[in-house]
Amino acid sequence: MGRSIRMRLHQIMEPAVEGDRASKVFDVGIMALIVVNVLAVILETVKSIESEFGEILYRFEVFSVAVFTVEYALRLWSCVEDDRFARPVLGRLRYMVSPIALIDLLAVLPFYLPLFLALDLRFIRVLRLFRIFRLFKIGRYSESMKRMGAVFRKKKEELGLAVFIVLILLVFTSCIMYYVEHEAQPEAFSSIPRAMWWGVATLTTVGYGDVYPMTAIGKVLGAVIALLGVGMVALPAGIIASGFAEEIHASREEAKLVCPHCGKTFDAAKDGDA
Amino acid sequence: MGRSIRMRLHQIMEPAVEGDRASKVFDVGIMALIVVNVLAVILETVKSIESEFGEILYRFEVFSVAVFTVEYALRLWSCVEDDRFARPVLGRLRYMVSPIALIDLLAVLPFYLPLFLALDLRFIRVLRLFRIFRLFKIGRYSESMKRMGAVFRKKKEELGLAVFIVLILLVFTSCIMYYVEHEAQPEAFSSIPRAMWWGVATLTTVGYGDVYPMTAIGKVLGAVIALLGVGMVALPAGIIASGFAEEIHASREEAKLVCPHCGKTFDAAKDGDA
Amino acid sequence: MGRSIRMRLHQIMEPAVEGDRASKVFDVGIMALIVVNVLAVILETVKSIESEFGEILYRFEVFSVAVFTVEYALRLWSCVEDDRFARPVLGRLRYMVSPIALIDLLAVLPFYLPLFLALDLRFIRVLRLFRIFRLFKIGRYSESMKRMGAVFRKKKEELGLAVFIVLILLVFTSCIMYYVEHEAQPEAFSSIPRAMWWGVATLTTVGYGDVYPMTAIGKVLGAVIALLGVGMVALPAGIIASGFAEEIHASREEAKLVCPHCGKTFDAAKDGDA
Amino acid sequence: MGRSIRMRLHQIMEPAVEGDRASKVFDVGIMALIVVNVLAVILETVKSIESEFGEILYRFEVFSVAVFTVEYALRLWSCVEDDRFARPVLGRLRYMVSPIALIDLLAVLPFYLPLFLALDLRFIRVLRLFRIFRLFKIGRYSESMKRMGAVFRKKKEELGLAVFIVLILLVFTSCIMYYVEHEAQPEAFSSIPRAMWWGVATLTTVGYGDVYPMTAIGKVLGAVIALLGVGMVALPAGIIASGFAEEIHASREEAKLVCPHCGKTFDAAKDGDA
Repeated sequence: MGRSIRMRLHQIMEPAVEGDRASKVFDVGIMALIVVNVLAVILETVKSIESEFGEILYRFEVFSVAVFTVEYALRLWSCVEDDRFARPVLGRLRYMVSPIALIDLLAVLPFYLPLFLALDLRFIRVLRLFRIFRLFKIGRYSESMKRMGAVFRKKKEELGLAVFIVLILLVFTSCIMYYVEHEAQPEAFSSIPRAMWWGVATLTTVGYGDVYPMTAIGKVLGAVIALLGVGMVALPAGIIASGFAEEIHASREEAKLVCPHCGKTFDAAKDGDA
Repeated sequence: MGRSIRMRLHQIMEPAVEGDRASKVFDVGIMALIVVNVLAVILETVKSIESEFGEILYRFEVFSVAVFTVEYALRLWSCVEDDRFARPVLGRLRYMVSPIALIDLLAVLPFYLPLFLALDLRFIRVLRLFRIFRLFKIGRYSESMKRMGAVFRKKKEELGLAVFIVLILLVFTSCIMYYVEHEAQPEAFSSIPRAMWWGVATLTTVGYGDVYPMTAIGKVLGAVIALLGVGMVALPAGIIASGFAEEIHASREEAKLVCPHCGKTFDAAKDGDA
Repeated sequence: MGRSIRMRLHQIMEPAVEGDRASKVFDVGIMALIVVNVLAVILETVKSIESEFGEILYRFEVFSVAVFTVEYALRLWSCVEDDRFARPVLGRLRYMVSPIALIDLLAVLPFYLPLFLALDLRFIRVLRLFRIFRLFKIGRYSESMKRMGAVFRKKKEELGLAVFIVLILLVFTSCIMYYVEHEAQPEAFSSIPRAMWWGVATLTTVGYGDVYPMTAIGKVLGAVIALLGVGMVALPAGIIASGFAEEIHASREEAKLVCPHCGKTFDAAKDGDA
Repeated sequence: MGRSIRMRLHQIMEPAVEGDRASKVFDVGIMALIVVNVLAVILETVKSIESEFGEILYRFEVFSVAVFTVEYALRLWSCVEDDRFARPVLGRLRYMVSPIALIDLLAVLPFYLPLFLALDLRFIRVLRLFRIFRLFKIGRYSESMKRMGAVFRKKKEELGLAVFIVLILLVFTSCIMYYVEHEAQPEAFSSIPRAMWWGVATLTTVGYGDVYPMTAIGKVLGAVIALLGVGMVALPAGIIASGFAEEIHASREEAKLVCPHCGKTFDAAKDGDA
């Protein structure tokens, strides 16, 4: 009977299948808790809110950690129902190092560590930052985050090429700008890495305005770099956008082709991309 | 006979059908009044214009409200000619809560409220803001605003996904930046919501330059975020743009190919998008 | 014989047909003169160049105006060889008001007007600005400027829609921002037209940083406007870019289709876009 | 036997063919050396690193130059194995002026020149800049840099048109802005070339914020230029991006459809792009 409880639990905790009310309620509940948690992490940093609602926020934090800890424990217990993690000990260890379980662990660990270890305050502050990883717990249920992941996997070759080209462009233009502007602005262009800060701001067209060329030749070169480089940096963006579009398109409906020779339909996408 | 007048009025007030001169004149007249009205609302805020032409602008406002009020009343009276709002009382009530009728109401209400209710000045100022909603009265006649609406309805799934991803990216990067820059810039990065102001300015590439990372590690992270994030934020833009392009393309005609040799038609798009 | 000289002159002055050496020489000569002229107009405004080479630049200006005047006169004389302007007086008048002839006139008129009329200095300065219109004389010979024109003509419907939507978005967001920020920044947001300056800088993502929201609610609204609006303003850009791509694609080769029923080829573009 | 050594050396130094271990080791070794070299050039400019590791960095520089010099000499010796450079003297001379060999030379020459020639310090600083050209030695092995080159070659016609249009737009708008803003901002808009700095910052949407129109008419014109011009400057970017996408697509495989019912192939792309 213990097995059947564990199996039911596993079903409930996995994303709901059509018609499973309990599982659906669990999913929506956890997602709501995650969203409110992230909001709490954000609002906690606002001084006026912290001073007024700090007590409530802390209690909510304790409550959330308790829920997430129980959730983590139950998942670890029931994960053996999954074929991939079927073996009692080794299966559970393998589950523990899977990305999705690590995110679950990172979501609660920052709360426990200071209780058990003597940590300096700096490190505790960094640990608090890790609470934001709770955001990624949402990935288990969110279709869009899964699709995003799929896009990155599918387009990783193109993205690699584009990022490589952007990096080379960035290094090259920043080096030139460093040599041109170094003397006129020894502070802002004190080194090539600092010139790269200008390079990123310019090539992404963010243009904060804290660094820009001031010499005549620096402005001419800066203008040429801006006019030509802007296109390069848009490359990764364009690749992700088109991958995302393809992903959505593909998930809607598989394109059906009619063979003009025999009139039957067949799936174009499978054969076409082969 | 009352019915036939009401029906004719209804025809005139709806977007003109081919050849209906009176209806065309009415449409163009109302559209011109809306455009001049919006211009008046804009120019009224310029002090030099207000001090010189304030009297005329006020009279024009009274005149416009009068016209729009009569228009609203007549529409309410004649709306029962439309099958959707055919029942005398219930139909008119349902018409009143339709978006297009609410916009018509919002366009005149801000003028009447202060006459009947004792409102404080702050609220009256907000009410004046609502006059800008007259802008959307143009939606009844404008093909492009209708198409824009159609694009948003058609692409709402994709847009939802993209906006969701942008929000997660924004929250995540802003949290990291808050922890990194908080100590160096306690004012500009005083809380995560304030760090999100930096996040929006950077990810949209607006880059006002009022907030930017100043620590070395903040600049490195800021550069990585800018290079990778710029693409994400362009996603909703790309989705709307492609939806708009499809909308225009579809409204022209469906591409049908007729082979000039054997006279048979075949659909190029179906074969082609495979 | 006078007619045959005029006809030959007309041939020479029109863009060269394959193999016409004299016409080719004329075209290249005029284009070179235009380019050097535009460079002269630009460099003349640099004080150090003006003080040293001012004399030479002025002589070059007189020489250019002389050449362009003779060119204009000859074109006016020989334009009757063109069927559209065949009638001696009326044809020449119609030629004079054609866009390309008006540009030719604008290129020289600013030089002559001050000689014949007593103009105040302000107006003379504006006239000097018109010299830059010589830039557009290049349009007669440049394939790319013609194509650009073709793109604008072809896409004018879509562009109209997109510009209309951008304008509505700009007016609406600027109005809201004016009401929100007016009190906190009475100078930068002194009126809706001034708030529109913020709107343009934000929606185009230029973000100079001279104006930005400072109140909390202003920043929240500004962030939402930036995230959603950036896509809209990219619409006209996208339309022009895709139109340009289609134009280049179409000019290369007409897409040939093979009918799968009878195996013959036919022109898809003509039938398909019908 | 000398010949067979030279041939083997040539094989090793060329990008590795499948299964040639020695060649693979050589390729990876040289690429690693290039990457570490570029990192050294970048880090050397950071004062704190230079003062601590300056000695090590200098020794690494000497070592790298030695390796690259030997590599250059061996390539020059073995290049005659390549059919294009087969003739002993003339072939080697022709190899020396090939772009890839010039980059190899530029990568080491800046080190030797000051040893043999009495150069002033300014020129030596410029020479140090040339060390960054070692970055392009990577082009011999990098698929993505080759593809980038292919894209530029393929799209050079379109890119030419787009750059030409961007330049005309830039010159025209900067001239207008100069005349409008010159009096109000005699410093920032002191000449048309300086106004072009504003033009580039605006049209690329970088918007540093060091220059922007201040007069009312300047802001109106600036807003119109920004709204309309932003699209133009995105043209080269779009052309490169689409060329890159086509390049990747083409390198995968040509889309061929096989009808699974009748077994015949037909090309989907041809029918589809109609």
